[in-house]
Formats: sequence, C-alpha cells, structure tokens
Amino acid sequence: MIAVDAMGGDRAPYAIVEGAVAAARKGVPILLCGNEEKLRALLPSDWQSLSVMLKHTEHEISMDDEPVKAIRSKKNAALMRAMQAVVQGEASAFFSAGNSGAVLVAGVVLSGRVPGIHRPAVGAFLPGQHSSSFCIDVGGNVDCKASYLYQFALMGHAYVSLTTSIENPRIGLLSNGHEAYKGSREVKKAYEKLSRSSLNFIGNIEARDMSEGTVDVVVCDGFVGNITLKVAEGTFDFVRQVLKEEIEKSWVAKLGYLLMKGPFKALKERGDYTEIGGAPLLGVQGTVVICHGSSKPYSIRNAIRHADNCASMKLNDKISSLVLENQNLLLPRNESTPLAATG
Amino acid sequence: MIAVDAMGGDRAPYAIVEGAVAAARKGVPILLCGNEEKLRALLPSDWQSLSVMLKHTEHEISMDDEPVKAIRSKKNAALMRAMQAVVQGEASAFFSAGNSGAVLVAGVVLSGRVPGIHRPAVGAFLPGQHSSSFCIDVGGNVDCKASYLYQFALMGHAYVSLTTSIENPRIGLLSNGHEAYKGSREVKKAYEKLSRSSLNFIGNIEARDMSEGTVDVVVCDGFVGNITLKVAEGTFDFVRQVLKEEIEKSWVAKLGYLLMKGPFKALKERGDYTEIGGAPLLGVQGTVVICHGSSKPYSIRNAIRHADNCASMKLNDKISSLVLENQNLLLPRNESTPLAATG
Repeated sequence: MIAVDAMGGDRAPYAIVEGAVAAARKGVPILLCGNEEKLRALLPSDWQSLSVMLKHTEHEISMDDEPVKAIRSKKNAALMRAMQAVVQGEASAFFSAGNSGAVLVAGVVLSGRVPGIHRPAVGAFLPGQHSSSFCIDVGGNVDCKASYLYQFALMGHAYVSLTTSIENPRIGLLSNGHEAYKGSREVKKAYEKLSRSSLNFIGNIEARDMSEGTVDVVVCDGFVGNITLKVAEGTFDFVRQVLKEEIEKSWVAKLGYLLMKGPFKALKERGDYTEIGGAPLLGVQGTVVICHGSSKPYSIRNAIRHADNCASMKLNDKISSLVLENQNLLLPRNESTPLAATG
Repeated sequence: MIAVDAMGGDRAPYAIVEGAVAAARKGVPILLCGNEEKLRALLPSDWQSLSVMLKHTEHEISMDDEPVKAIRSKKNAALMRAMQAVVQGEASAFFSAGNSGAVLVAGVVLSGRVPGIHRPAVGAFLPGQHSSSFCIDVGGNVDCKASYLYQFALMGHAYVSLTTSIENPRIGLLSNGHEAYKGSREVKKAYEKLSRSSLNFIGNIEARDMSEGTVDVVVCDGFVGNITLKVAEGTFDFVRQVLKEEIEKSWVAKLGYLLMKGPFKALKERGDYTEIGGAPLLGVQGTVVICHGSSKPYSIRNAIRHADNCASMKLNDKISSLVLENQNLLLPRNESTPLAATG
C-alpha cells in the first residue's frame, strides 16, 4: 500500500486524488491521507470497489511553511500521517507533491537515515537529447560538504544501476568548467574523493553534458540542483512564451505552427521530466517519492506507481548494502585537511 | 582606443579581427594585440586607412590554462599586453573573448581593484520575455562570502542605473526559493545585509523571475551564475536539436518550419544575450569587457563598442564613488557573528 499525502501541492487535493485513483485502477493499493470530507467529494462513485483507503487528518503543511517548524507544530498534517503509516508498516512507500523540504525533514525524523548516510537527498531525472541524467541533490541540502557530495554520487550510482538498464553509470560533478581545478572548495574536494573511488567518475561536467547525454548521474548540492532545475524550466517557459507571442503576429506563422504540432508535441514529451515518474528521496529508511508541486494527475499516477516499484524491489535495502560495502570509501581522509591541489 | 586581445576565444583570431575591424569602421580606434603575422593575414586590404594599430605578442593564453599560472608564466601573451595597454594609459578599455578567469586575474593584478571592493565580478544581461536582467557574478568568484554578494548587488545597481534607463533597479538574490529562510548560509546572510541597505532589494528570486522580467539585477556567486548561464544555453540547444530531429521526420513539419522562420528568428534574437554587447568586469580600475568564447564577429563588434561607451562615461569612477558613498553599508555587522534567524 502507498501512503499518499493528498493535501500537498499546488493542485491539491483534486490532482492528487485523481492521480491516486488512476494508480489504484492500475492495481496499486492507496492510503489517502487528508481531510476526509474534501477527499470524499473528489472521489469517483466507484471508489469503494478500488483498493483506496482514507485516513482523516486535521492539518495541512503548505508550500510556504518552514519545514522544521511545520514538522514540529503540525503533527497531524496529512504529510506527517502518511509518513507515519510507512514507519509503522501500514504502507510500503510514501508519496507527496507538497513541501519537499518538509518531506525531507519528516523522512529523516520519522523514518530515519540509512546507516552511514550523512544527508538523505532528492534525485530527479533531467531530460537530454538522447538519454536522461539523474541529478542528485535537487532537494534541500544547501551548504554540502565534500563527503555529502560523495555520498550523493554513491546513492545516485545505486539508484540508476538498480532502476535502469545502465550497469555502471557515468558519474559527473556539476561545476563551473570541465577542468579539474574548477569548482567551489567543496566541489574540488569531492572531485578528489570521487577520483579515488571505484565509481565510474568522469570528472567535472557542465550543463551541455546533461543535454548531450554524456553523463548518467549528475552530482551537486541541493542549492545548485534546485536552481539548475528551475533555470531549465524557466528557459522552456521563455521559449514557449516568445514563440506564442511571435506566432500571434502573422497568419503565415499560425499556419506553420499547425503543421508543426507534431514536433512541438514531441519536444514537450521529450523535455518533460515529470513523465519519468517522481523524484525519490534517497538515504532514508522508508521508500519516499516526491513530485513537483505543479504536477498534473498523469505525473502523479506515474510517480505513485514508481514508488510502488521501488518498494517492491527493496531499493532502500540495496542502497544501504551498497553504502556499507563502500564504507571504507566514505571518508577516505580527514575532512579538515585541505588538499594541496585546491589551494 | 580599445585594446583587443586578438588571440583569445574559440574563434580567435579570425572572428576577433573581423569584429574589431567592424568596430573600427564604426569609429572606434583599435589596438589589436596578437601574433602580427597571423593578424596581418586576416586584416582587410584597407585596414591602414582605419584607426587600427597592431601590437605583436609571442604567447597565447588558451581557454584551458589555469588562470593564475597563465598570468605568471605568459607575461607576453596577447591578453596580458592588451591589459597593460589600459594600465599604461595607451588604451581606455580592454576587450577579450578568451579565458575569462585569466582576464579576471589579470584585471586584478595589473589594473587593481576599485577601492573598497573585495572581489571584482563579471556581469551579463540574461534575456527575459519582456526585459533582460543583469546577472552578477557570472565570472570566477566561487565560495563567495555574504559581503562579496552584497558588493555585487552594489556594483550591479551602479552598472544598470548608469547604462540603462532604469533609475532604481530591482535587486534580487538568486536562491532555491522565494522565502526568506531559503538559501545557503552566505545567501541568507546576504539577504539580511541587503534588507538593511538602501538598495531596491526585492528579496530572494528564482529563475522564473528572470524570464518573467520582475527583477533587474540578479545577485549570485560565480559558481551558481556560471551554471545558470550554461543551463539556459544547454536548454536552448536541447530545444533546437530536438525540434531539428523531429522536423526531419515529416515533410509536413518541414513545410511548417519554413512558414515559422519569422518566429524562430525572433526567438533566436530575443534569447541571445550576446546581442546586448559583452559582459563587463566590474570592480577593477580599468574598463574591461569580455565576451563568450564562441562569440561571432557581430557580437564582438557590439562588445567592443560597448567597452568604448563604458570608458567614455567613466563608469569605473562612478562605481567607485557609489561604493565609497555606501562604505558604511559594506560591512554592517561582524561577518563572524551568526545571525539568529539563519540558525
């Protein structure tokens, strides 16, 4: 059973309910947490014939709530009750399209970290021209030490090798240039650690490597990862808006647009990472999948099914073993010793 | 006279020579620094009737050279000689499309900082749907303290208010969310500083604010700024490549593309920040303008003319006065005192 935070996200609860019901129709049992009255009003008439259960909750954590405060003060929020259902074994995985910072904190506080992991992190597939790359962290870990970045690489390796056909994913470190001397202090230290690891580390990468598909796992801190996602989205919006305005100016262009519907549809599909199905929170004990706040029912359904798959394959146990196996690599030298090469 | 590093950039020296000659034809006197034999071979037959002078140099600093090492070991490189020409008063401004890290270091070492400025920074206009925003730093300042970010805001304010019609530019801090509690440690400290300043600070901003044009100056460290620029570029490339592939698949789409040439041309123009004319290095004593390494002659001509304008309006003196006037704001409280609100 997948515990769903029905009250989180820009389109909650209606888009969440619709997506969850669609997942239930595909055979995924759902525990829908939220305001029972509101949820009942949105459920289809045949919902009781599907494996959908309701859990009433009083409070909601909004997108603007400061995560730590919200977790402390709203213990009966839908997000919290859904996470508790996973911790208590009622559900095998958690899903939310709500406040991702609050999900991260709730995951760590209620569910606990995988042994050895310093900071759980959120990963997301970013579209490329011919293949997508898995970017970790796109969640809330700002100010990451090199050892955190190293662990993000390890978790990204585990996730991609377990959920895709890529056996030994190419790991790249997002930096301000390909050269080894480029990067912030911690990125340069992480470069050293990754170079000495058994991971398939290909060095520093730039945005172009992501769009050209020469990297499978992109490692960065959550501040940079978040900005990267949003700049890519913002650029798509820019292209869409400018073309729309320019097309409006001439009937010739309008006709051209009609004839080009196919390529534009393909662009939308190939450029829309929400198609791939949610972003996992890796490094916590339970299976936790989140989604963009503005996700539509179709993406929500995909993400819930993906959460179900991750739980079935016991992804967390596998990540945990991989981390323990590589324990000797986790902190290969004292963090406080500055590397000569990085000045 | 504008001192031009003719040997720097992916298309050097031919694109630089062509752009510089085009600027000379528009009345900007040029001092072209580089390998004299190569430059003469590229100059048009009438070049001696234009105000173009040549300065022969032996070495070149490549895009891959580590800046500090290159500056120390290649004192007779075109980039260095062009910068020296500005320091010695032979030229009023410097231009390069080469190694931007090396330009930054050469600017600081040879030309010196504006009094009071901790870190000179590179700014660039990023296109938005209806207006562009000036992003600072997109250069090489990684690991920026809050006080550096604050000064970037000050320099951005000065540049935009002096070179555009915007009198009191809206300053935004690039972060992983709009909320005041979002951001890395230094970004949160910079938020506090900016809130207490007399600048027109509008708070944290996200990529969407840039494309929607609700901000005039975007403040970030050089690591994040560099990645922001490259992700935007990479996304444009992605759109271009995917559409190209999809259009190839059908003759209907090919016809549609022909009819849509106008909107695509407009998109290219509106999305191409190199049109605006180079990126200034602010906070050094001389006028220094750089350009993307892959810039074409047209962009190079624009950037050289822009450098000439900046020198004419004595931009650096004005920035210097503005910084001195706001000296009391520069370090409003002890950097080492953690702010209560940021935990």
